[in-house]
Amino acid sequence: MTLPTIPPLLDAPADLPAALARAIDNKTKPLGSLGRLETLARQVGMIQQTTKPALREPAILVFAGDHGVVAEGVSAYPQDVTWQMVENFLAGGAAINVFAAQNGYALRVVDAGVAHDFGPRPGLEDRKVAMGTRNFAHEAAMTPDQCLQALRHGMDLVDALPGNVVGFGEMGIGNTTAAAALMHKLTGIPVAQCVGAGTGLTADGIRRKQQVIEAAVALHAGAAAPLEVLATFGGCEIAMMTGAMLRAAERRMVLLIDGFIVTSALLVAARLQPAILGYCVFAHCSGEHGHRQMLDALDARPLLDLGLRLGEGTGSALALPLLQAAVNFLNRMATFESAQVSEQSA
Amino acid sequence: MTLPTIPPLLDAPADLPAALARAIDNKTKPLGSLGRLETLARQVGMIQQTTKPALREPAILVFAGDHGVVAEGVSAYPQDVTWQMVENFLAGGAAINVFAAQNGYALRVVDAGVAHDFGPRPGLEDRKVAMGTRNFAHEAAMTPDQCLQALRHGMDLVDALPGNVVGFGEMGIGNTTAAAALMHKLTGIPVAQCVGAGTGLTADGIRRKQQVIEAAVALHAGAAAPLEVLATFGGCEIAMMTGAMLRAAERRMVLLIDGFIVTSALLVAARLQPAILGYCVFAHCSGEHGHRQMLDALDARPLLDLGLRLGEGTGSALALPLLQAAVNFLNRMATFESAQVSEQSA
Repeated sequence: MTLPTIPPLLDAPADLPAALARAIDNKTKPLGSLGRLETLARQVGMIQQTTKPALREPAILVFAGDHGVVAEGVSAYPQDVTWQMVENFLAGGAAINVFAAQNGYALRVVDAGVAHDFGPRPGLEDRKVAMGTRNFAHEAAMTPDQCLQALRHGMDLVDALPGNVVGFGEMGIGNTTAAAALMHKLTGIPVAQCVGAGTGLTADGIRRKQQVIEAAVALHAGAAAPLEVLATFGGCEIAMMTGAMLRAAERRMVLLIDGFIVTSALLVAARLQPAILGYCVFAHCSGEHGHRQMLDALDARPLLDLGLRLGEGTGSALALPLLQAAVNFLNRMATFESAQVSEQSA
Repeated sequence: MTLPTIPPLLDAPADLPAALARAIDNKTKPLGSLGRLETLARQVGMIQQTTKPALREPAILVFAGDHGVVAEGVSAYPQDVTWQMVENFLAGGAAINVFAAQNGYALRVVDAGVAHDFGPRPGLEDRKVAMGTRNFAHEAAMTPDQCLQALRHGMDLVDALPGNVVGFGEMGIGNTTAAAALMHKLTGIPVAQCVGAGTGLTADGIRRKQQVIEAAVALHAGAAAPLEVLATFGGCEIAMMTGAMLRAAERRMVLLIDGFIVTSALLVAARLQPAILGYCVFAHCSGEHGHRQMLDALDARPLLDLGLRLGEGTGSALALPLLQAAVNFLNRMATFESAQVSEQSA
């Protein structure tokens, strides 16, 4: 399998950055006064290589998977919650259903590796790589083949999307443990700073989670290359997101990055193809301990900071109106000339 | 004229806070995992006195007015920009038109005191109190009567709104100078920390602005009561917002507070009726120097922090989808019981 190759964002017509700056600065507003929205407008213009960008048919992919490491007692919720929440997504009752519907996202739910037999289900993308991963406290979570299969499914899922904006979300009891391990291995940040409460661990639970990760890191000390680290500690849903992200950026889509687990999948993708970061909009800083430092490691500035720690892509869904606002002001505002408004004195 | 009396938010059925907490905690998500959205949902529930709140027909009122103090050279733009931007609002070409339309706000443009004769204009609310204020470097900006007239117009405008959500916005060359003077007088924060670049002053311009305010504060040293301070340093658009805010809270509407100038109008309202703060959602922290400290003085936590410094109510308009998301999750998400999802282990 060949992984996508991502062109640097600056591989665009040489006069585009200046044309975008002119288009933004001529709008009827003080220079720079739309702040982060101006940065976003420039970024989307560069991704789509135009001064008239448009967001078409945004979709959110929610990847679900289970984690063998839950056997170590690292989550406040039982593993069954993963499949139960998938059912909740299919029935339309979860937070992501509400926010995606409100903000005009199509929602696609993917079984990447849930430890449950759903049977054939309308509305559920069956991309099951395994009935959950193995317990990385004892062995690698995925075989190299399973990891590659997950990456491939992710790429295929993105190839089937009709639009040019994709948000990422996930569900998987135990996956903050996997994401914390990935963070530690790929950034070198001490495990204690990577682990958090997840769905609601007590201080004792967090200590236990940290010990489980530290022991596993010692056990798998040889894992070093990004895909090897991903197979060893990751999850089917995380690996599938990594593949989907790589393909989405190769296709010059806008990627809306959610919280701690989604960002850990991007961490892997960015180690493989650093240029991917130019295509990413960071939706929010999660309330999960460690996310701020993970974002810093990617030099990423999130749009929202609302203390969300739910996952599912809820942050991605909530940030879409801001992305839309950036594109809209660029396309729809009058210029000083067209509106006959006086410009700043010299 | 009698100003509105605002009931404390806690003047609600005694069991409502607990009922709201139960409704929020029973949703299919880890406890507290929707962060600030949960706080918002509780607040809107308390304002509307129900566990099933609804946002009806949100409107943004944009108040325009001119300021005599521009004669002191305190703005980077000429005064004509105020009426030119009003024309831009009416033609649909400004940032607030774009964001209000995107997020489903009705937009109402109010001539509170622009130094320009618009004649009868469809779409423009003519509430002109004066052809701009007087120059507070030499005399009070408004007479007590003008100030009361502006407050009354604001109350009447809110009485004519059909919905239960109102966002505030403004346009007025020179009005960051008026707002900075109000901030200093009402909070005691030194003038140097209240002044900023406004539409784009240089460092020299900011120093000049500070000197103008400091001299005016010395000249009007006797002004102390909130309405006296408002008449002395405020603007017609600021006073009209103060009146509109007081009435909106009295009617138990949700108030979306924008940036530096809108918050200065609230500062006056809160000195008159501190209970108003319970009805306010703080849309964003502006890039205008001083706004953060002004928010701190009100113990206010803004939702967005995007470096916006445009005014017009753009922050209010951009925050509406977050408010809507808070109400939607409360009304539409499944409960653990209804979705048959397992709850957290004890």
